[in-house]
Amino acid sequence: MNTDHIDFERSERLGFPEFVFGEGKSTEQIARILERYVERGDACLVTRLQPEKAKALAVDFAAAVYDPVARTLRLGEDQAPNGLGTVGIIAAGTSDAPVVAEAEAVLRFLGTGTRVFVDKGVAGIHRLLGSLPELQEADVVICVAGFEGALPSVLSGLIGQPVIGVPTSIGYGVAQGGTTALHAMLSSCANGLTVVNIDNGFGAAIAAHRILKLVARRSGS
Amino acid sequence: MNTDHIDFERSERLGFPEFVFGEGKSTEQIARILERYVERGDACLVTRLQPEKAKALAVDFAAAVYDPVARTLRLGEDQAPNGLGTVGIIAAGTSDAPVVAEAEAVLRFLGTGTRVFVDKGVAGIHRLLGSLPELQEADVVICVAGFEGALPSVLSGLIGQPVIGVPTSIGYGVAQGGTTALHAMLSSCANGLTVVNIDNGFGAAIAAHRILKLVARRSGS
Amino acid sequence: MNTDHIDFERSERLGFPEFVFGEGKSTEQIARILERYVERGDACLVTRLQPEKAKALAVDFAAAVYDPVARTLRLGEDQAPNGLGTVGIIAAGTSDAPVVAEAEAVLRFLGTGTRVFVDKGVAGIHRLLGSLPELQEADVVICVAGFEGALPSVLSGLIGQPVIGVPTSIGYGVAQGGTTALHAMLSSCANGLTVVNIDNGFGAAIAAHRILKLVARRSGS
Amino acid sequence: MNTDHIDFERSERLGFPEFVFGEGKSTEQIARILERYVERGDACLVTRLQPEKAKALAVDFAAAVYDPVARTLRLGEDQAPNGLGTVGIIAAGTSDAPVVAEAEAVLRFLGTGTRVFVDKGVAGIHRLLGSLPELQEADVVICVAGFEGALPSVLSGLIGQPVIGVPTSIGYGVAQGGTTALHAMLSSCANGLTVVNIDNGFGAAIAAHRILKLVARRSGS
Amino acid sequence: MNTDHIDFERSERLGFPEFVFGEGKSTEQIARILERYVERGDACLVTRLQPEKAKALAVDFAAAVYDPVARTLRLGEDQAPNGLGTVGIIAAGTSDAPVVAEAEAVLRFLGTGTRVFVDKGVAGIHRLLGSLPELQEADVVICVAGFEGALPSVLSGLIGQPVIGVPTSIGYGVAQGGTTALHAMLSSCANGLTVVNIDNGFGAAIAAHRILKLVARRSGS
Amino acid sequence: MNTDHIDFERSERLGFPEFVFGEGKSTEQIARILERYVERGDACLVTRLQPEKAKALAVDFAAAVYDPVARTLRLGEDQAPNGLGTVGIIAAGTSDAPVVAEAEAVLRFLGTGTRVFVDKGVAGIHRLLGSLPELQEADVVICVAGFEGALPSVLSGLIGQPVIGVPTSIGYGVAQGGTTALHAMLSSCANGLTVVNIDNGFGAAIAAHRILKLVARRSGS
Amino acid sequence: MNTDHIDFERSERLGFPEFVFGEGKSTEQIARILERYVERGDACLVTRLQPEKAKALAVDFAAAVYDPVARTLRLGEDQAPNGLGTVGIIAAGTSDAPVVAEAEAVLRFLGTGTRVFVDKGVAGIHRLLGSLPELQEADVVICVAGFEGALPSVLSGLIGQPVIGVPTSIGYGVAQGGTTALHAMLSSCANGLTVVNIDNGFGAAIAAHRILKLVARRSGS
Amino acid sequence: MNTDHIDFERSERLGFPEFVFGEGKSTEQIARILERYVERGDACLVTRLQPEKAKALAVDFAAAVYDPVARTLRLGEDQAPNGLGTVGIIAAGTSDAPVVAEAEAVLRFLGTGTRVFVDKGVAGIHRLLGSLPELQEADVVICVAGFEGALPSVLSGLIGQPVIGVPTSIGYGVAQGGTTALHAMLSSCANGLTVVNIDNGFGAAIAAHRILKLVARRSGS
Repeated sequence: MNTDHIDFERSERLGFPEFVFGEGKSTEQIARILERYVERGDACLVTRLQPEKAKALAVDFAAAVYDPVARTLRLGEDQAPNGLGTVGIIAAGTSDAPVVAEAEAVLRFLGTGTRVFVDKGVAGIHRLLGSLPELQEADVVICVAGFEGALPSVLSGLIGQPVIGVPTSIGYGVAQGGTTALHAMLSSCANGLTVVNIDNGFGAAIAAHRILKLVARRSGS
Repeated sequence: MNTDHIDFERSERLGFPEFVFGEGKSTEQIARILERYVERGDACLVTRLQPEKAKALAVDFAAAVYDPVARTLRLGEDQAPNGLGTVGIIAAGTSDAPVVAEAEAVLRFLGTGTRVFVDKGVAGIHRLLGSLPELQEADVVICVAGFEGALPSVLSGLIGQPVIGVPTSIGYGVAQGGTTALHAMLSSCANGLTVVNIDNGFGAAIAAHRILKLVARRSGS
Repeated sequence: MNTDHIDFERSERLGFPEFVFGEGKSTEQIARILERYVERGDACLVTRLQPEKAKALAVDFAAAVYDPVARTLRLGEDQAPNGLGTVGIIAAGTSDAPVVAEAEAVLRFLGTGTRVFVDKGVAGIHRLLGSLPELQEADVVICVAGFEGALPSVLSGLIGQPVIGVPTSIGYGVAQGGTTALHAMLSSCANGLTVVNIDNGFGAAIAAHRILKLVARRSGS
Repeated sequence: MNTDHIDFERSERLGFPEFVFGEGKSTEQIARILERYVERGDACLVTRLQPEKAKALAVDFAAAVYDPVARTLRLGEDQAPNGLGTVGIIAAGTSDAPVVAEAEAVLRFLGTGTRVFVDKGVAGIHRLLGSLPELQEADVVICVAGFEGALPSVLSGLIGQPVIGVPTSIGYGVAQGGTTALHAMLSSCANGLTVVNIDNGFGAAIAAHRILKLVARRSGS
Repeated sequence: MNTDHIDFERSERLGFPEFVFGEGKSTEQIARILERYVERGDACLVTRLQPEKAKALAVDFAAAVYDPVARTLRLGEDQAPNGLGTVGIIAAGTSDAPVVAEAEAVLRFLGTGTRVFVDKGVAGIHRLLGSLPELQEADVVICVAGFEGALPSVLSGLIGQPVIGVPTSIGYGVAQGGTTALHAMLSSCANGLTVVNIDNGFGAAIAAHRILKLVARRSGS
Repeated sequence: MNTDHIDFERSERLGFPEFVFGEGKSTEQIARILERYVERGDACLVTRLQPEKAKALAVDFAAAVYDPVARTLRLGEDQAPNGLGTVGIIAAGTSDAPVVAEAEAVLRFLGTGTRVFVDKGVAGIHRLLGSLPELQEADVVICVAGFEGALPSVLSGLIGQPVIGVPTSIGYGVAQGGTTALHAMLSSCANGLTVVNIDNGFGAAIAAHRILKLVARRSGS
Repeated sequence: MNTDHIDFERSERLGFPEFVFGEGKSTEQIARILERYVERGDACLVTRLQPEKAKALAVDFAAAVYDPVARTLRLGEDQAPNGLGTVGIIAAGTSDAPVVAEAEAVLRFLGTGTRVFVDKGVAGIHRLLGSLPELQEADVVICVAGFEGALPSVLSGLIGQPVIGVPTSIGYGVAQGGTTALHAMLSSCANGLTVVNIDNGFGAAIAAHRILKLVARRSGS
Repeated sequence: MNTDHIDFERSERLGFPEFVFGEGKSTEQIARILERYVERGDACLVTRLQPEKAKALAVDFAAAVYDPVARTLRLGEDQAPNGLGTVGIIAAGTSDAPVVAEAEAVLRFLGTGTRVFVDKGVAGIHRLLGSLPELQEADVVICVAGFEGALPSVLSGLIGQPVIGVPTSIGYGVAQGGTTALHAMLSSCANGLTVVNIDNGFGAAIAAHRILKLVARRSGS
């Protein structure tokens, strides 16, 4: 069982590289995968990596950079700015920071620009309304919210750009680890809101990147 | 099994009479209960009564008034206006009308004033903001919403009065017959929002009535 | 409760008009809304409209066109082709036709071009692989699947464009009315797949439209 | 991501200040927020704060008072008694103490009076009946119960004041972390009972406070 | 597939005969089973039989007696009174009548005496307290309740006899077809309450019968 | 959307033909598919076909044979007996007949022999034990059960052959449409029991066929 | 909040004393309750007490006896044998030992005799059949099982005594912490099986005790 | 409670020995069981054994071999190769390694040959297609996948052998600890796929072994 099958061709096929999902892998498995990247001279981003594994990997991969909020480990450099456009990332509360940070780290790794807006929860709707002019300048908006997950519903009724909702596991009781926020976003009466899995800042970032690449393709760049 | 035990003393104990829940009872059972009210000369309101049962009951209770939207059957008269205050009832969409109508019918039966605002869903937040001055004049607000149930969250962050959320079964897929709206309201990051069961316009009305009665008690009336 | 609050300003705000969700509204409510559109001379599309309601509305709105597969009622004309690009719509099975048809009807109403691929389920993966060259020409792909909902996972690993998954309620037992397909798409190990509610062809169409409008905005058109 | 957007205007808008939800925030985030309060000279209450975070915060905020049962951290003083009325807090069992304590701490911070009744579970109904005269003197009653959550049902049938049910996560097996108690309270055949999220003593306190403020508003004070 | 394997030996093995569960069987299947009973000259009780099947069976089994409330079909006579004791059957509301009737029909078929108490819901607890002296005379009590299912909790704290809870599917929203009542009874903080499936008046009756037979066995009769 | 993509190559690829899932398809869609089979001169079996659709199809496909218990429609002839072995099909109760019949119909269509045992539920375990000698002669056993789904657990502990469990939707209350039986079979402490979806007699038949084909392949036939 | 309301009158009312549920209470709360028992000179049994709390309590209550398998703490002596009869306790597997031990400890505390049978799971049905003669001598049988929870179904079909099923949280995956075993027992096609909450050995013991007390009452002792 | 009832006759009855499920048993219980095996001179495999228990058991059972990935403890030797055939084991990702290892350990203990393929997830479908020729040489295939669990669906459409799906608990959010993968496999539109419980590599191995034994039985060996 010693031949991991890394999808190095993904970049040609899809326009972005494979990322390594760290959560379910042992430190040994991740180390073996990172070695393969080192051999090829490729940069690599590990997501959802627990701090204790990051610490253990630091021994052999001293150059790797761990972000304890985003829980990402980066080996090699972020790509140069790609000029594809700007992804707005808006979050309902301070507690959603890890998800915001993960989305930022992934987009930065891909060279895509971001702009972040935090603490815009619907319990104080004026905070959202005040940021509207800036939000309207973003090309795509990632909208992060836990608890009742209402922010993407309100936002999607205010701007016409693509909005990607990310429910977070923040909350308790019937928040059910993010399930209520997820189902609320999917049931939204706002039109054309799409959603990713709970706490999946990574997936939202890639979805935004797919959209911006389309713009480039269509404009012939 | 022929002696139904109606709680006629409820009015003295709680300050409002017993209502008859029609949904799970057979037409025969309801008829037998109504006869008891007729004998006592008391007015009575049956809630959640299916149209076919209402039609069957109309034969023997010609004076009873059925409201097909609210699904209530009233025997006898509504109480005279009690001057306790005004209950605002705001709904996210046109489809929530049956729940709004049930709350209205119950409050009217109790003599309590209402003011209704429909189609104020969060996908067009300006509609809510435009009604704010009027909403702030209500003493208690019942806030009705299906789908993602976000309206009570936003509203509770805008006004300081008691807000009672009523999730409705409007929606499909993960709206899950109102469960998502219910859980969203309960998980709300807005402060002090309370909630009743799905489609329970009746319960919200009684809760609002309990609050207004408190005002009367406290002001010595 | 007689003043429905239609969001006629949505078009300026978001770049597409309000649609009417027909499922939870009574025939009378829909008729009243349609009259408002007729007065303004605007076209209108009602979604998720049950056949019996469509039949009842045909009496007063003889010019309205009902599509029994898509369950949409159109009053007035589709917009002229907008040249924004092409939305590919791919479905796993014949049974997914209503959802495909709804997405098509909505995009056609907005003047956006579509291309449809049916019966490409993963149980015969060669069918999907055979359509790949054509799929790669689409700008955005809506991917519709019931049962285990695996098609969007496989597809998102084969093409780099934005992919929007639509789970359908086709299946039985633990398919749970589309919940399993929905959760499978959200849990997908494919990167950057976004998802809408079960059977929500409408939402997927609007999401695709938002993306294509971005292309237009960015390319200065 | 360093500009937390605290809703300092909440007090004017709603009549009570913002509270800080401590559970999902890092110690660093909370410290940054507390500093803002210190700068303004405002008092502040952090809820659902884990003991280890409280210990860490004690280093820099020596004057802050942590209540290990209520899991609240108070910076600055409770408001002076506001004379709005009395909130009765009744709990089914000794194990519900943390939720009772949280509700008490929040009301005390707002200057509202409370009276507490513990161990009144329905398995020994005489304990509830014996406290009835005292309960009837409260203006609003917060009713806390885990396991089957039956206490608010019984209580709401005995007194006419507003009753706010708080399900707790006490119990095991199908008690499901409080979901059964929550659903039981929402399904209650008692009339006009409203409910907040599982273990949400905070929300119940604010709801009670909203009601008492209404009394003041109505009586012109 | 034409040889149904009826468990005619059950009576010797367990002390009570096999009953026929009618709900999932076709009219033809039930007819074939009834013929076997007729051949043997045995009495038989079919439970949960839909009215239309009962009507169809009446053609060939004219002597069979159908109870439309209990939904039972009896072929042959009830057993003579067995003198084992009395089973109290108490129900929270009028709507629980079908479950009460099923339990009664099964016990009557077995020759066991019953005493029924209806409309004793906890929202008017005095109704239960008033019936306590009579309930204390029953040997076993079957306690039937829908909605929040609180009655068995309260009752089990008032009497020392065996109490068997039967949740019913009466209620709406989060009552979830009886699941909330079931889980509430199972989570009860009352001691020694046992429970059967939702609407399972039949199972409760057999459980009560098993207990009364034990009394007979132990007292040597 | 008019080009259904039938997987006619499935037979070469997998060793058995494609079947048509009738439940979610319209009568028109099925008719169009059947025509394709008629053109090719291939036999075809439609599963889970509702009676009203079968009746409508009978007009144009007079030679097709509908089995109302199995809910299958067969066009063309069953394959000749293939001599691969015998599949035992055992069911807990009479009510499980439709699932048993579906499995039988599918295996008969493939030319594989079956032997059926009905009414062997665990509430009368002697019925199962009595059939054991015959069951031990089967090569593979399909074990069908609703309610608590215990039969496959017991059976798998008594015989060493492959056992495939099929939960059925027979039962009520917490039987939850077959979910409890399904989860019980999957949680079974019996070793090596495999399971298919609720009511999926078809899937169990194909799984048994795959196993028997392996025997043939391995023995060189 | 310092006056715990212990139900010391329970013994007269119900025929057995109150027990202390240790799981959700703090060590301080339990200590305070135990002191009340010491003052009265009453014996007391604490259930579901975590080892670390037992260790802490041992300092002040040196005479208390903790059973680490049953997780019970006993202060004072078990009651003398009451001669009411024998409760058989049968468990499917070795892993169910804690639940068996809890039931034993509770019955022993009440002076009721028990007989235990372990490792009788249905995957080796001969083990159950071999114990049948002994089981038939018990007056009431408590039947404990995790995983698919099939043992009570089989047993209830073999003996005519009252059988009380106790699902345990043993198992993984869809065993769902005992929910599958619970639902399987409730859905059982065996007649007259009653059930208690997951892992609730305590409740089963009290239910058995209630039954045996009835025997005593009926036989005049 | 000291007489564990080990099913030593299982080997004769079913053709494979009993295995010991370690997860829910205490170290003492496992030690007692292992001693019984030592006394008989039989080999034994303990599954799902936590590392800390393995460490504790190593003191008294020095010859036992613990595999920390598979979490199995083997006492005695694996059986000699039985020549029954080869079981292919294919996994979607590196994180599925523990389940793969458990299945391998069990089959090796039984003397059955295996061949393993890892990292063949559907997000890079070419990896699966590239391994197809080798997979077609296996007699039975165990297919392991977490997240959306799509691999068995795709695979079952590509090969005709028996395929046994094993969902794993790898994933987060709506992956729900493997429930989504499980339900996806059960809902699969691929034909004849059977499934075992989440993470149940053991069960899949035994199911594969049952199939291979059948081949031997049928071919007279």
